[in-house]
Amino acid sequence: MRPDGRQPDQLRPFTFERNVAKFAEGSCLLKIGDTHMLVTATVEDRIPPFKKGSGEGWLTAEYSMLPRSGRQRNNRDLMKPNGRSMEIQRLIGRAMRTVVSLDRLGERTITLDCDAVQADGGTRCAAITAAYVATYDAMRWMMKQRMIKEMAIKEPIAAVSVGVRGGSEILDLNYDEDSTAHTDMNVVMVESGRFVEVQGTAEQEPFAADTLGRMLKLAKKGIDELILAQRDVLEI
Amino acid sequence: MRPDGRQPDQLRPFTFERNVAKFAEGSCLLKIGDTHMLVTATVEDRIPPFKKGSGEGWLTAEYSMLPRSGRQRNNRDLMKPNGRSMEIQRLIGRAMRTVVSLDRLGERTITLDCDAVQADGGTRCAAITAAYVATYDAMRWMMKQRMIKEMAIKEPIAAVSVGVRGGSEILDLNYDEDSTAHTDMNVVMVESGRFVEVQGTAEQEPFAADTLGRMLKLAKKGIDELILAQRDVLEI
Amino acid sequence: MRPDGRQPDQLRPFTFERNVAKFAEGSCLLKIGDTHMLVTATVEDRIPPFKKGSGEGWLTAEYSMLPRSGRQRNNRDLMKPNGRSMEIQRLIGRAMRTVVSLDRLGERTITLDCDAVQADGGTRCAAITAAYVATYDAMRWMMKQRMIKEMAIKEPIAAVSVGVRGGSEILDLNYDEDSTAHTDMNVVMVESGRFVEVQGTAEQEPFAADTLGRMLKLAKKGIDELILAQRDVLEI
Amino acid sequence: MRPDGRQPDQLRPFTFERNVAKFAEGSCLLKIGDTHMLVTATVEDRIPPFKKGSGEGWLTAEYSMLPRSGRQRNNRDLMKPNGRSMEIQRLIGRAMRTVVSLDRLGERTITLDCDAVQADGGTRCAAITAAYVATYDAMRWMMKQRMIKEMAIKEPIAAVSVGVRGGSEILDLNYDEDSTAHTDMNVVMVESGRFVEVQGTAEQEPFAADTLGRMLKLAKKGIDELILAQRDVLEI
Amino acid sequence: MRPDGRQPDQLRPFTFERNVAKFAEGSCLLKIGDTHMLVTATVEDRIPPFKKGSGEGWLTAEYSMLPRSGRQRNNRDLMKPNGRSMEIQRLIGRAMRTVVSLDRLGERTITLDCDAVQADGGTRCAAITAAYVATYDAMRWMMKQRMIKEMAIKEPIAAVSVGVRGGSEILDLNYDEDSTAHTDMNVVMVESGRFVEVQGTAEQEPFAADTLGRMLKLAKKGIDELILAQRDVLEI
Amino acid sequence: MRPDGRQPDQLRPFTFERNVAKFAEGSCLLKIGDTHMLVTATVEDRIPPFKKGSGEGWLTAEYSMLPRSGRQRNNRDLMKPNGRSMEIQRLIGRAMRTVVSLDRLGERTITLDCDAVQADGGTRCAAITAAYVATYDAMRWMMKQRMIKEMAIKEPIAAVSVGVRGGSEILDLNYDEDSTAHTDMNVVMVESGRFVEVQGTAEQEPFAADTLGRMLKLAKKGIDELILAQRDVLEI
Repeated sequence: MRPDGRQPDQLRPFTFERNVAKFAEGSCLLKIGDTHMLVTATVEDRIPPFKKGSGEGWLTAEYSMLPRSGRQRNNRDLMKPNGRSMEIQRLIGRAMRTVVSLDRLGERTITLDCDAVQADGGTRCAAITAAYVATYDAMRWMMKQRMIKEMAIKEPIAAVSVGVRGGSEILDLNYDEDSTAHTDMNVVMVESGRFVEVQGTAEQEPFAADTLGRMLKLAKKGIDELILAQRDVLEI
Repeated sequence: MRPDGRQPDQLRPFTFERNVAKFAEGSCLLKIGDTHMLVTATVEDRIPPFKKGSGEGWLTAEYSMLPRSGRQRNNRDLMKPNGRSMEIQRLIGRAMRTVVSLDRLGERTITLDCDAVQADGGTRCAAITAAYVATYDAMRWMMKQRMIKEMAIKEPIAAVSVGVRGGSEILDLNYDEDSTAHTDMNVVMVESGRFVEVQGTAEQEPFAADTLGRMLKLAKKGIDELILAQRDVLEI
Repeated sequence: MRPDGRQPDQLRPFTFERNVAKFAEGSCLLKIGDTHMLVTATVEDRIPPFKKGSGEGWLTAEYSMLPRSGRQRNNRDLMKPNGRSMEIQRLIGRAMRTVVSLDRLGERTITLDCDAVQADGGTRCAAITAAYVATYDAMRWMMKQRMIKEMAIKEPIAAVSVGVRGGSEILDLNYDEDSTAHTDMNVVMVESGRFVEVQGTAEQEPFAADTLGRMLKLAKKGIDELILAQRDVLEI
Repeated sequence: MRPDGRQPDQLRPFTFERNVAKFAEGSCLLKIGDTHMLVTATVEDRIPPFKKGSGEGWLTAEYSMLPRSGRQRNNRDLMKPNGRSMEIQRLIGRAMRTVVSLDRLGERTITLDCDAVQADGGTRCAAITAAYVATYDAMRWMMKQRMIKEMAIKEPIAAVSVGVRGGSEILDLNYDEDSTAHTDMNVVMVESGRFVEVQGTAEQEPFAADTLGRMLKLAKKGIDELILAQRDVLEI
Repeated sequence: MRPDGRQPDQLRPFTFERNVAKFAEGSCLLKIGDTHMLVTATVEDRIPPFKKGSGEGWLTAEYSMLPRSGRQRNNRDLMKPNGRSMEIQRLIGRAMRTVVSLDRLGERTITLDCDAVQADGGTRCAAITAAYVATYDAMRWMMKQRMIKEMAIKEPIAAVSVGVRGGSEILDLNYDEDSTAHTDMNVVMVESGRFVEVQGTAEQEPFAADTLGRMLKLAKKGIDELILAQRDVLEI
Repeated sequence: MRPDGRQPDQLRPFTFERNVAKFAEGSCLLKIGDTHMLVTATVEDRIPPFKKGSGEGWLTAEYSMLPRSGRQRNNRDLMKPNGRSMEIQRLIGRAMRTVVSLDRLGERTITLDCDAVQADGGTRCAAITAAYVATYDAMRWMMKQRMIKEMAIKEPIAAVSVGVRGGSEILDLNYDEDSTAHTDMNVVMVESGRFVEVQGTAEQEPFAADTLGRMLKLAKKGIDELILAQRDVLEI
């Protein structure tokens, strides 16, 4: 049994809330357990220099945590250009670009601001899962503005963490589980069951190939549930 | 009449929500019109160097806006150590220290993180008004932990903006009003009606002494209402 | 009686010296008590991006203190982009723009460099008071160069600090008085007696409305004297 | 066939050179194809703050590329605290700590400086593979200095990239292959065949589960060869 | 003939003014032509880490120019940690340490702040020449405070620039001469005629050995005159 | 006798290796004693802003040391924009520009990256000496590319250090000698025997004019040998 009474293959209770940011073109607040992730999507008529003249658009992400989102306060100065947050925002942007048709956006940039208002593990996965909803709504707004003719997302995308703790594989680790896990893995997947990112890290002991197989299976189960809920909240 | 139909001496509709951040010692989300200000209070057993050995505590504030809190997205890099945000967080810290009995805190620091989740004018005033509630709850927590014996706040404190627009004085300017006001003033006041900060700025034209008098009167009216509501939500 | 024998409503002895910087378009060294403030005005044929194409000019200010201007040496590295100096230079720029007709300057920028060569309190006020003289001379230079046809300043402007110490209101605080004052206020005013900035801060105790009134009256007296002297040194 | 004539499952030709840096406690230059990776291991009698008093040691890594290591010159200023290099050095440190017995080091730090002297793809993998050799020699030096009694490495470790290009899986991508691959994966593995890191990224198209399986198999083949060569050069 | 009518071996007119900074332990304003260099000496009871426990003191220098000290305004941000100013302040500190008996200072630091209030060439040389006077007075202050028993300076020190322009060697170049010189050389010398620093740079053409000889001779002449004047103003 | 058995006027054994960096337009690895200096020359079709429209090219240098190039590891963060390395790279660039005909390059920039792979004294001199070889080869490449018609170097250039230690002048100091020398001098000279830079610094005691003369003579002897070897390796 897990500390919070969940089964090994059980996600934390979660809710999606759309359009929580009045001024943003799209936004989503995903609460999954005690992790509260706010993602806003901003559409701007500009393009990074390396995309100039390509006729294509761009999508990028920024990730941060509010200083007192977690158990300890993090100094605002220390939170800025650190390795961890840059690694995470590169992951989010890369994953989202896999499902977005940049060529349909025109020379525009969608910026996803992913801010952990409260953090209890799994924030990078929550960011991707919420980013899909915020991006979808931003594209609806673009269609209304006649900036684009059709939806420029290919497929739903979501992410979960899996890990090994106390000898068995578990789904969707909270902060306490994450801190004590032997292996930690983040999986980003699209609805068709194919992988976008697989990032597995042995924290103390290297892990065997069959452990890897069981973790990937758990991840698929969790992602399937999240994508169903995304479709539900987006009414698609 | 004002753009949103308010009377010149009318605050925007507002609500206080306490304990919105699970991990913080105190927290408050103040929604006033479309400005949503989240303040968390963190209590730590450390003290800045210049207070070492004084036997007293310290209180400090940090202020930021989420990149897409307003009409335009602000670049996260540009938001960091800029003049405006530093000026604001110095104001918040200074004002709150006026009503806190630092000598009762022991060598501890209370850090107020003031993050504008949504911004439609008046964020610095909303931060002070919400900070009082978050600080009060953090002190209740300190009392429960037997860190302090009694409440270390002297008096309720709140803040509002006032200004001159279209020739008449108005209370609690939203973003549109603020952008077009001739004069802009922030007033921080305690329950007993005394001033903690008065910051009036002529944006285009210098202002006369009697204008100043009328603005101060409007400010007092708004602050009285906010302090009543603080008492209500804190049940004191 | 005050530490240096002054009456409560008495300014420190002061002198203005014009054209002290050979290469600058305008300059003024104001010595007021032991505060020595050097302001140079630089005229450049460039305009910040947000003013491009407006046909108007811009005026901005920078403020710094030499490392050993005061009783203690301040580290040069620590002095740079800190909250206090940015707050001060924003104040100086904003105040000066209130009296300058930007539309008469053409797309040019006047930069006011305010450097405290020696600092004994009241440096931000001294900077504004000296900036008026340096700006006036820079405009005379612009007229000679036929960049502008007529003087682009609307009205003389000056600033003083006032405060409460030992229960009574005093004018033009030096460093020692400032460190021990209960309330500290900076007032920027134009010759016609209207306010440009009013910044009052309770250092320990909030202050009452009638205290505010008496401080504003003292400020007016000091500013009137400074403006007379500006006119004298500028021969206008 | 691959651009350089290799088979899909063939590593680039490689050589390890030990003790190339006269002053370092351990060092290794790994040339694999046109990627030349220099790793030095520095042993210091200090420990990061979070390890103070633990009785254990620490191992950390830094990663950089010389400005003209690749086809294009990279500006030295831009190379510093960027997301990519921080991500890579975190990976190297984490991987190496999995095979080092920190508790046998005493309160000492081993710093691995990984500098790409020439870069043609696969630098992060080359860094890990060379780091094993440099670390091993640094520990031999520590044994000679009687700092440690026995070797503090548990198992050999190495890394390779694998990917999908033109529809088939390939081993050890060079820069050109990497730039045009559909999927890119870095695998870090120990001699016993268990995983330390698995990082797979879909560049354009998500990838299927059986593709993942074939990539992992290729990676194992390459890593087995590298570990044999490490043992050979270290004479163990 | 030179642009300002001087002979090739003639210094610009110069004056030393002592004790110009009320709060500093020693200070000197050297005006040489249109270069006005202010040096303050600060004595502090601290020592850099590498000198801890040595029983010796330290002397260091910082160098800067006011933004509008010269013909063009220099941006304050760009002036900070640039190569030129760091090179200059390292030179000043190194030169002054050659003539100071650090072992007589106790564990104290003398910091020389060298700020060019007006700059028309030769600022680094003026800084060293004025630093001698400021340091001497700071040591007089230390003797009065009974921090040291006797003067801790070994010998007077001064500096001048020399160069080649229009085919002949000239002494003490102003900004215009410096900009158009073929060779530029800074010489720091002590009263006994020995060299502390010799820094000669060919700007366009390499220079011959006999040119070097003639420049060194000119430098000696200028330095002798400056040291006489230092003795005069210090009354030693 | 010197610690490593050399005569006072003897260079350390040295070798030049050309074209060590596959991707650079020119490169040279100079090993002189235990100092190993790698210089790459990059040719780019861009020009700094102050050269725009001049029709001329530019040459600039950057200098760094690998963190563990020396006896102690230098922190990568501390190595960046420090005074010493900026001073050195300014020297290298300035010296090389003296012998390059910028007007023959077209609006192109040659960037010399000088990285000390191993450092045992004399790195700045080694950088200049190796830079000549790398620049020469980069120009050969430019001629092949028909960017330039003829070689744009006027004359060979090289540099050595000289110093005074134990009362006598010595050539080409290694790290140990440099640390204990009374005087340290770097001399940059062209083949015709004229000076490009002369930088002599008294470390403890000022030095006399005849000492300066003897050091310059030693420097000439060393530079003559290095230039012969440059010609040899370049086959010119």
